Amino acid sequence: MSALLFKNIEKHIQITDEEFEQFSRNFQLRKVKKKDFLLRAGEICRYEAFVTKGCFKVYYLNENGTQQILYFATEDWWATDIDSFTNQIPAILHIEALEDCEILCINKPDKDALFEQLPKVEKLFRIMNQRTLVAFQRRVISSIGKTATERYMEFTAKYPDLENRLTQLQIAAYLGITHEFLNKIKKNISGN
Amino acid sequence: MSALLFKNIEKHIQITDEEFEQFSRNFQLRKVKKKDFLLRAGEICRYEAFVTKGCFKVYYLNENGTQQILYFATEDWWATDIDSFTNQIPAILHIEALEDCEILCINKPDKDALFEQLPKVEKLFRIMNQRTLVAFQRRVISSIGKTATERYMEFTAKYPDLENRLTQLQIAAYLGITHEFLNKIKKNISGN
Repeated sequence: MSALLFKNIEKHIQITDEEFEQFSRNFQLRKVKKKDFLLRAGEICRYEAFVTKGCFKVYYLNENGTQQILYFATEDWWATDIDSFTNQIPAILHIEALEDCEILCINKPDKDALFEQLPKVEKLFRIMNQRTLVAFQRRVISSIGKTATERYMEFTAKYPDLENRLTQLQIAAYLGITHEFLNKIKKNISGN
Repeated sequence: MSALLFKNIEKHIQITDEEFEQFSRNFQLRKVKKKDFLLRAGEICRYEAFVTKGCFKVYYLNENGTQQILYFATEDWWATDIDSFTNQIPAILHIEALEDCEILCINKPDKDALFEQLPKVEKLFRIMNQRTLVAFQRRVISSIGKTATERYMEFTAKYPDLENRLTQLQIAAYLGITHEFLNKIKKNISGN
């Protein structure tokens, strides 16, 4: 289970087996059933979760009750409401399991303590935050400046293996369009 | 000039005068005239800039030639195309001075070396990246899930002193609406 976490970390920093042992002791394994919530808007986000199995949708529910999916967190991704977790304020995001999931999660006090115990974890999260920033910058630009077709192409590039695990409605909610419009885009792309 | 940078850093980490001296040696002071570009899309973003005077708009030009302003970087903010700077790939953002500006800028090799020389800089940028992530998360949610009025309210909360320094067109380009619609929103809010 934590082999995936080890590989994820090893991409960014050099870490010995002992250090990883110390690192991973702060994580708890949890199983989350399909359709269960890891977080609901209004709650405080207590955990950052590393997904080892399954897929979550991380979304915002607007005042009309429409789901706006920010991102999907699947194997080898992290799921959290960064605003709520960092500032320990009520979340505005929902995190819901789309499949039966397994996660490794760390709470804020343990994460804060980890920075003291293992200073190289600062580098790790500095780099991971940087990568998430790049992803968020791309997401902002997409959502404010790109066409639905461009957004769909970006989705398939970002999540190359995910399309078959999601419904058309979920993909449309990520793209901010109706699923009828998504069908049209897919038809246009395939030239039918 | 660098007193502002010192104060900015001191919010996040404890740093001695000697360490700050070592830190700030990696920054160069630059003046950028109103309407000049710090970065154009297609160039590689060589610098991260800390703004000590003036205001920049950081924007994306969509295929219709419409400016979509991602954020304004004014005194005490950082301006960069994080994707281009981190990965040294062509930028998709333009960074343009809206006023005569002064910045302190650091290039990538110097920033990378700084992490080795002064490990506490890892903590600094981990925390700053985290804060930027929170801001980006809010921006994504606004742009995909909130009404124009809500986005305008968020703008005034985020930039409490900036409205008078910007044109209505610039604010509208940040909100992703026409300036006629912005006028309508402002009239509704003031109850006229």
